[in-house]
Amino acid sequence: MVVYCVNVYVKKGHEEDFKRASLENREGTRREEGNLRFDVLQSNDDPSRFFLYEVYKSTEAVDAHKQTEHYLRWREKVAPWMAKPREGIKFTPVAPQAETDW
Amino acid sequence: MVVYCVNVYVKKGHEEDFKRASLENREGTRREEGNLRFDVLQSNDDPSRFFLYEVYKSTEAVDAHKQTEHYLRWREKVAPWMAKPREGIKFTPVAPQAETDW
Repeated sequence: MVVYCVNVYVKKGHEEDFKRASLENREGTRREEGNLRFDVLQSNDDPSRFFLYEVYKSTEAVDAHKQTEHYLRWREKVAPWMAKPREGIKFTPVAPQAETDW
Repeated sequence: MVVYCVNVYVKKGHEEDFKRASLENREGTRREEGNLRFDVLQSNDDPSRFFLYEVYKSTEAVDAHKQTEHYLRWREKVAPWMAKPREGIKFTPVAPQAETDW
């Protein structure tokens, strides 16, 4: 299992645009066979800061996700709203371990 | 609902100590009435980097967590293993919204 964490900073005024686009991407992603979770979070202290918490069955599933139409559409749509480049980090869960716990 | 994200960097050689202590803390935390999730993750690229993904019903539940015996024990235990101060950030979920989806 792989947890892909993405830190996002959007330009002021594009918070709602980003949420809308990310919810669309989430909907498509949750239907992928290799996806287990997709949480979209907004910082309490800085509303222009977002965090995506994406859980996949494998690194191959992450790679497959990045080929999907909904991901590519999201990537193109959000590009002009980024205040700085996104930072994506891959983690391995220590706990929980069971696929059903995600 | 509040997601409390904690970035942790441990001193080399204390990775297993940190995992063990955090799994204990997780066990206690998962029994708290206000807790919905507690994921412990280790970075794929840097094994001394960890990430805690803690979901609570409210900010009050986060505060209550920080008074618990298991949290205080964890905090004391891991203190000498920290390579730098922990960074904790509070987020509000955009999705999912339902408590049952955590």
